[in-house]
Amino acid sequence: MVQRTLNDALAGHKDERVVLRGWVHRRRRLSAVSFLILRDRSGLAQVVVSDDATKAQLDALPEETVVEVEGTVTANDKAPGGFEVTAPSITALSDPAETPPVELWRPSMTATLPVLLDHAPVLWRHPAQAAYWRLAAASLRGFRRTLDEQGFTEILTPKIVVSSTESGANLFSVDYFDRKAFLAQSPQFYKQTMVGVFERVYETGPVFRAEPHDTVRHLSEYSSLDVELGFIHDHRDVIRVLRDVVAGMVAEIRASAEPAAELAKADLPEVPAEIPIVHFSEALRITGADPNEPDLSPEDERALGRWAQQEFGSDFLAVEGYPAAKRPFYTHPQPDDPRWTNSFDIIFRGLELCTGGQRLHRYEDYVAALTARGENIELYEGYLEPFRHGMPPHGGFAIGLERWVARLVEADNIRSVTLFPRDIHRTSP
Amino acid sequence: MVQRTLNDALAGHKDERVVLRGWVHRRRRLSAVSFLILRDRSGLAQVVVSDDATKAQLDALPEETVVEVEGTVTANDKAPGGFEVTAPSITALSDPAETPPVELWRPSMTATLPVLLDHAPVLWRHPAQAAYWRLAAASLRGFRRTLDEQGFTEILTPKIVVSSTESGANLFSVDYFDRKAFLAQSPQFYKQTMVGVFERVYETGPVFRAEPHDTVRHLSEYSSLDVELGFIHDHRDVIRVLRDVVAGMVAEIRASAEPAAELAKADLPEVPAEIPIVHFSEALRITGADPNEPDLSPEDERALGRWAQQEFGSDFLAVEGYPAAKRPFYTHPQPDDPRWTNSFDIIFRGLELCTGGQRLHRYEDYVAALTARGENIELYEGYLEPFRHGMPPHGGFAIGLERWVARLVEADNIRSVTLFPRDIHRTSP
Repeated sequence: MVQRTLNDALAGHKDERVVLRGWVHRRRRLSAVSFLILRDRSGLAQVVVSDDATKAQLDALPEETVVEVEGTVTANDKAPGGFEVTAPSITALSDPAETPPVELWRPSMTATLPVLLDHAPVLWRHPAQAAYWRLAAASLRGFRRTLDEQGFTEILTPKIVVSSTESGANLFSVDYFDRKAFLAQSPQFYKQTMVGVFERVYETGPVFRAEPHDTVRHLSEYSSLDVELGFIHDHRDVIRVLRDVVAGMVAEIRASAEPAAELAKADLPEVPAEIPIVHFSEALRITGADPNEPDLSPEDERALGRWAQQEFGSDFLAVEGYPAAKRPFYTHPQPDDPRWTNSFDIIFRGLELCTGGQRLHRYEDYVAALTARGENIELYEGYLEPFRHGMPPHGGFAIGLERWVARLVEADNIRSVTLFPRDIHRTSP
Repeated sequence: MVQRTLNDALAGHKDERVVLRGWVHRRRRLSAVSFLILRDRSGLAQVVVSDDATKAQLDALPEETVVEVEGTVTANDKAPGGFEVTAPSITALSDPAETPPVELWRPSMTATLPVLLDHAPVLWRHPAQAAYWRLAAASLRGFRRTLDEQGFTEILTPKIVVSSTESGANLFSVDYFDRKAFLAQSPQFYKQTMVGVFERVYETGPVFRAEPHDTVRHLSEYSSLDVELGFIHDHRDVIRVLRDVVAGMVAEIRASAEPAAELAKADLPEVPAEIPIVHFSEALRITGADPNEPDLSPEDERALGRWAQQEFGSDFLAVEGYPAAKRPFYTHPQPDDPRWTNSFDIIFRGLELCTGGQRLHRYEDYVAALTARGENIELYEGYLEPFRHGMPPHGGFAIGLERWVARLVEADNIRSVTLFPRDIHRTSP
């Protein structure tokens, strides 16, 4: 078989015969010539068809048909990238394609969200749509690379579990042979456990939330980028790693997915060397909220985003010290004032991007925290076992991959950047 | 906070005061001195305690207690790695640890499998046990790196699905709001679909099989390393990528997990530049099996393993051309003889390691294949949509991560190398 050339490599083959393979992205029939725009994973290439037989052949190859094109790479300032392919012979590699539900060759996808989601298996082919996922894939690479370089070990932990991590609500149940099990809401317990083995761990995998409400930012299955690390002083060590991770994700997009970032109109942030940190109580003062409020409202978060921009020129702000009542039982209290906790939210451009914090690491503290919340300790014995046998001070965070991408491209709805979203209404395609 | 030094970096700090952090792996009280063997993520370090107060303090810090040790790095030929830490001061970072269910400081773990699995959250700390997962983590890195370098895009696809991919059997059902859904047995449909977008894709994630039998090689949840690529000539292009992937996994273990490979007594294979290929019909002749057998027995596979070793000096053998009856409906037939298929199994040291092949890529072929098997086409419409709109010839494979590691270390039971295994009896820890 002749070596295939990718569309973005034409410049290296001036005046040579090459073989391209891809999809018929668009055809345009002019009076003298026909144009075939060929799409492959690297981008688009323009093929100029002059002879009548090949023009007639092209007429019978609708958009999205898969073809092989052999032709000559010819310089042309007017062609995309400065080169086009001339004197082509074309071979179909698939049957003539049916017309897609939305025309994929238009620069912007005109589909409504329901159409986009119903026909996702085909509509993800649109270059601007595919660009969303390229940002996700590059972010995954940047996430892992940053952590690999900092001595983290990747883990993969079970998604079928016997009990909840955060609370009994929002759990999907599974018919597991002769009994009930559940889908994991997060790898929280497992990543803490594995700090006892590898000190620093991460996991990229699905998490499941039986979210009964239909909002633009919730999915019932999403990709969670989880990090947990031991031997910290407090949650600020966690924020430092988070900063490096986010910077690594952005750097990897710039390094390997810059064209996708342009296509997706992503507004990539500068990640400051240190994310500015403000205490929850101070955040309430800044926004003018009631000092007894236990949480930040969306308006508060937007105000804090503006404040971080004004004060620090930063897209990112860490709010630390959230009240214990609003945080899970495993959250470490603030040592000098247990009304507050060593936990944080990261506000990215006025919206919460992720949550993290220092965890309890002493068995007796877990028993006390669970008892105070009226929980049955026995149900947690498996979880608590590592804490009986020596666990270091530790903490971590989780970033929702789809939410991250949605923020970068300012998507109205998280579903439009999710490969095959799952929500209260949707389990397919 | 003083900069922490890892145990494996002592050589770079000769005669300096350093701060180490980790677990009390073992204590040994001799007449003149006490030894503290400290374990951190990088390995073990020997700490020599001479003064009585610190010796008494160490007596109250049982194995697995988390400590910080400040001391002087001192050359000693008899110490592991040639250095030890002397004149230490010790600070406990956790409460004194309870004694683990199995002594973690013994060179080999003496736990029976049920004890190992029940207490996995603590017993994974044993260095030889942790080494198993280090092999898995390095394999994951090598898998992704190889594919990233070959133009693949990582995908993450939903695990909650409406229908099965392979057959209706072995599916776990999920209570999904007001209806039933299922856990994905594989990302087969999605990875094929995404070939239409990115041409070459991979996914590392959980798959779920409701395996009702209790064997040493089956799990009901495991980590599947899935690959799918378009624009192939036939399944042999897939075997070539598989060869590169396996070679990349082994290379990454050698590069970054050599100590773990030694601890785990892994027998790393040499991956030949080309995996030798034998046709299924020829394989039956080699083993002397009935030429009408539709599948290879475990004894056949062992015989073929020996044969590949004798003939080619290879740990790996690809058997191509499996009969259509034993392969899923999406399998591409062998063009010159449709009794056979363009599918393959990889036999690694006499055991099946993974399965793959070329898939159908024309819509009409899917309709015919499903109809021939008595399937209801309507149930597959979502899956088939991409094939109406132009799909290239493509194929792929999947490697079970835990099975791969089990083979490398010749584990008797796949559960012993799985972080938190799930089977018919077990959903926790």
